Amino acid sequence: MTQNVYQHQDSKGREENANRARMLISCPDRPGIVAAVSQFLYEKGANILQSDQYTTDPASGMFFMRIAFDLGNLEQNLPALQEDFARIADRFEMRWSVYRAVRRKRLAIFVSREDHCLLELLWQWQAGDLDAEISMVVSNHDDMRGLVESFGIPFHHIPVTPETKAEAERRQLELTAGKVDLVILARYMQIITPKFIEHFTNRIINIHHSFLPAFVGGKPYHQAYDRGVKLIGATAHYVTAELDAGPIIEQDVQRVSHRNNVDELKRMGRHIERIVLARAVKWHIEDRLVVYQNKTVAFI
Amino acid sequence: MTQNVYQHQDSKGREENANRARMLISCPDRPGIVAAVSQFLYEKGANILQSDQYTTDPASGMFFMRIAFDLGNLEQNLPALQEDFARIADRFEMRWSVYRAVRRKRLAIFVSREDHCLLELLWQWQAGDLDAEISMVVSNHDDMRGLVESFGIPFHHIPVTPETKAEAERRQLELTAGKVDLVILARYMQIITPKFIEHFTNRIINIHHSFLPAFVGGKPYHQAYDRGVKLIGATAHYVTAELDAGPIIEQDVQRVSHRNNVDELKRMGRHIERIVLARAVKWHIEDRLVVYQNKTVAFI
Amino acid sequence: MTQNVYQHQDSKGREENANRARMLISCPDRPGIVAAVSQFLYEKGANILQSDQYTTDPASGMFFMRIAFDLGNLEQNLPALQEDFARIADRFEMRWSVYRAVRRKRLAIFVSREDHCLLELLWQWQAGDLDAEISMVVSNHDDMRGLVESFGIPFHHIPVTPETKAEAERRQLELTAGKVDLVILARYMQIITPKFIEHFTNRIINIHHSFLPAFVGGKPYHQAYDRGVKLIGATAHYVTAELDAGPIIEQDVQRVSHRNNVDELKRMGRHIERIVLARAVKWHIEDRLVVYQNKTVAFI
Amino acid sequence: MTQNVYQHQDSKGREENANRARMLISCPDRPGIVAAVSQFLYEKGANILQSDQYTTDPASGMFFMRIAFDLGNLEQNLPALQEDFARIADRFEMRWSVYRAVRRKRLAIFVSREDHCLLELLWQWQAGDLDAEISMVVSNHDDMRGLVESFGIPFHHIPVTPETKAEAERRQLELTAGKVDLVILARYMQIITPKFIEHFTNRIINIHHSFLPAFVGGKPYHQAYDRGVKLIGATAHYVTAELDAGPIIEQDVQRVSHRNNVDELKRMGRHIERIVLARAVKWHIEDRLVVYQNKTVAFI
Repeated sequence: MTQNVYQHQDSKGREENANRARMLISCPDRPGIVAAVSQFLYEKGANILQSDQYTTDPASGMFFMRIAFDLGNLEQNLPALQEDFARIADRFEMRWSVYRAVRRKRLAIFVSREDHCLLELLWQWQAGDLDAEISMVVSNHDDMRGLVESFGIPFHHIPVTPETKAEAERRQLELTAGKVDLVILARYMQIITPKFIEHFTNRIINIHHSFLPAFVGGKPYHQAYDRGVKLIGATAHYVTAELDAGPIIEQDVQRVSHRNNVDELKRMGRHIERIVLARAVKWHIEDRLVVYQNKTVAFI
Repeated sequence: MTQNVYQHQDSKGREENANRARMLISCPDRPGIVAAVSQFLYEKGANILQSDQYTTDPASGMFFMRIAFDLGNLEQNLPALQEDFARIADRFEMRWSVYRAVRRKRLAIFVSREDHCLLELLWQWQAGDLDAEISMVVSNHDDMRGLVESFGIPFHHIPVTPETKAEAERRQLELTAGKVDLVILARYMQIITPKFIEHFTNRIINIHHSFLPAFVGGKPYHQAYDRGVKLIGATAHYVTAELDAGPIIEQDVQRVSHRNNVDELKRMGRHIERIVLARAVKWHIEDRLVVYQNKTVAFI
Repeated sequence: MTQNVYQHQDSKGREENANRARMLISCPDRPGIVAAVSQFLYEKGANILQSDQYTTDPASGMFFMRIAFDLGNLEQNLPALQEDFARIADRFEMRWSVYRAVRRKRLAIFVSREDHCLLELLWQWQAGDLDAEISMVVSNHDDMRGLVESFGIPFHHIPVTPETKAEAERRQLELTAGKVDLVILARYMQIITPKFIEHFTNRIINIHHSFLPAFVGGKPYHQAYDRGVKLIGATAHYVTAELDAGPIIEQDVQRVSHRNNVDELKRMGRHIERIVLARAVKWHIEDRLVVYQNKTVAFI
Repeated sequence: MTQNVYQHQDSKGREENANRARMLISCPDRPGIVAAVSQFLYEKGANILQSDQYTTDPASGMFFMRIAFDLGNLEQNLPALQEDFARIADRFEMRWSVYRAVRRKRLAIFVSREDHCLLELLWQWQAGDLDAEISMVVSNHDDMRGLVESFGIPFHHIPVTPETKAEAERRQLELTAGKVDLVILARYMQIITPKFIEHFTNRIINIHHSFLPAFVGGKPYHQAYDRGVKLIGATAHYVTAELDAGPIIEQDVQRVSHRNNVDELKRMGRHIERIVLARAVKWHIEDRLVVYQNKTVAFI
């Protein structure tokens, strides 16, 4: 067992969060939603700290809302509040959730042999910048056991071969289903099956490189080099059954030039990938994301 | 008289705006504000299209809100709505305003000899990207008369010398006070007096170059060159009595290198200035900015 | 005839340029090229101001070089210099060109109904930021005649219909072949034929929007909106026979959010297009671009 | 002793580097420099891989050059090459250096209690992205011993108090003088004395936060928050006797909004600091930087 060399720091202001909740709502837009929700929270004694909303189309669109509020004795009072809110939710045909800020999301990070995305998440986590619990790291290789355990995080080596694929998935589900809140594919180079996705709808985040234009086929960095692209990008998205086509959460790019060879493009790609993935994870664990159809409403 | 060679395009969706209003509110934060405002608007039959809010500090801070809403027969119904809202405003000690989207802000652009900021505003305006009325351009030089008049906009040449400064200001106020809603200093190289500022509190936008670090004294581009800065920036801010120290509205930067000589730094500076100023103006005319103490809350 | 309301400013430092030349070289890499070229120029009495080079692969790659130099009485002495340089060029199997900086490139701007790219070029040109001659604007619509002529630039209306396409191209070639150095497609919404491209190999620059990921099929901005992209981009490239697949010159992006509707995405797209196109044109007219295979070496 | 949990990866292509050298030159500009240098290298059998140059002013300015070349049996042949080059250097009054790429720079990282800059360097190093040797980490606190030793790097705890300051500096110099090539102040919160700087002229890199505008006095993040700045930046520079006023190497910024409180601004500041510092270090160890007067010529 490796010694834990990192001193994990709690996120700033966790004690403030004891009575804090975040509510995410989506429903067909019509007059009176904001009034009903805010009046309800006011009568319950909640103090709204932040409220964001968005309407796709005022005429006949969808309405989305995120409310952060403080409520005295939240732990005791939340169940009753939720029960009472159901009436409003029914009236407006809402899909909704409430999350207690103090209840950290449990993360499982899946990784293969590239460590840059994993390391960024571990570092931000130990610095107190990711207010979550990293429950485990799962990998189809054993390479990163020492690193992960040096952070005091459980590491599970689940090899994947064509023969063991079904068994591997069974073990992954056994470890995660009902036990983690978010699965992060931090350069995990195995296909996730529809069955696994089903257990984590809109709760699996993937990262991949992106280019303008996109390059079809293999070796995209070589293609990008051959075409002389000037920007290397990365996209974080929720995983759906269609490969790399799920709702986009975040994107960013870095400038490159003809002087950068394929290895350098890859290095820059790694850099932008870790930044973009960490942002997407942060937004998810702070309950800032609502998925609607194939896009993400990000209250940031 | 110059011929008008530009065909001004109306902004997209102006007809949708006939019944649209935007309300800006600031007041000490306490529970119930959102509920009271949204309930009020709901009872009046208003449909909230967008609502943004921000609290400096949930405990004892200031609360800011921007609401865009549609109300049937807005022109007829707004006065009564405003009268009734006064009760809520009193209760929460609000500073507030309501603007009809269809009522374009009237702009006066002040300019000296550099035309880049003026041109960007004129072109965005004629393209329908700035939903405002450009009432006049005022300059201490006559150089840009032909250009301005080619857009069909009145041009006023008001020379400024030490002797005529007071008289020039009198004429500027005569032209603008009560007649324009926003004064834009688009590289106007004269000091604005406290008296003029008083007539346009938080309604004068200035643009100036910015560097990291800031350079004290004259010839800032030369100093930036000598220090080898890697970023050239611009800051748009509201004008206050203290020179260049008013609330910041927007900032941006452009990357430069040691290869760029002073003239090129200036050229890049001009480019970033026009972009930043146009963004700040756009946000102001869409009622997205609230000034509090020495900062700007920008609901963008 | 419209009055010219713009006062075109000459680029800064044109008088310095009287004896300035720029040489672009590409050849198979091998030892001694830089020594041979710089020794040659030294013996001719030239003063090298800037020299950039790039090698795709030191082992067996291609070598590219851009040299800016001053030579006394350049106009008289350049022909002899070129003649003598041929020996070196032969020895290293070079493709090469020398351009006199004082000899402005002649531009033809092709445009349809969207004016944003045209306007940016006209503005940068009249501000002295594009050191070129705008010989003409060609359009398949007559809308922009007044605007173009207000800059004192000839405007040619050449309508294009399926029936007149061949005749239109004949007139375009008549106007431009041998008479302009660079054709800029500033949102020109007609297909350029291989025959026209042949007359202007690596001398036609096009601009188009770009997304991460790329969207196949029509209405890309609608698709980008539906997928919730976070970045809107533009790509400037040289035109080749394969549509929108020529060597990339420059790319850039602007951040967007779910709050931006399709019209706003288009507006932002227009903004980034004009910036990117103007940069590409500036680099071309300053002889900073070398095309090799399907990529562009940009000495910037 | 902590177990080493990281597997340090060698930089890509180190074996290619065995015969690679980089030459940095600065001298008064005059005709013939490039010819003389490139002819010299050609005659020595060197193959120039990359050559960059820059002239502050063709008339009477300074000339800077960076040449990367391969030379067979570099280790054996370099001393003779240097000896012979001295004639050319004398003729043009050059300041110059030659570095063998295979000879990694030895780094000493100085750190206090904030670990973000240190961690970024350690991780880029272990990923093979920083081609250097991290000889030691020196800190005035013992907090990071475990972390540093987990990378297999020596850690020296040298406390600094007003009483021990002189003795601390003596120990620092004892550890570093003549033994490391570059000192990196990775958020080291102690003043470096002129005596220490003298031992490492243009070989100490510092990182600090930057704002537009700069804020004089204490608590800059609070001031930035109060003014509502829209960009948070960082500057990496060489350390000179004048505090934070040395030649700038690299700068970058990140966008912020009024919603970000002081703690978040600090978090974002940390993020941009680590990126900017790592870039500056990378350029230094690749011999891409030349200091002239108070600016840095960066051949990147």
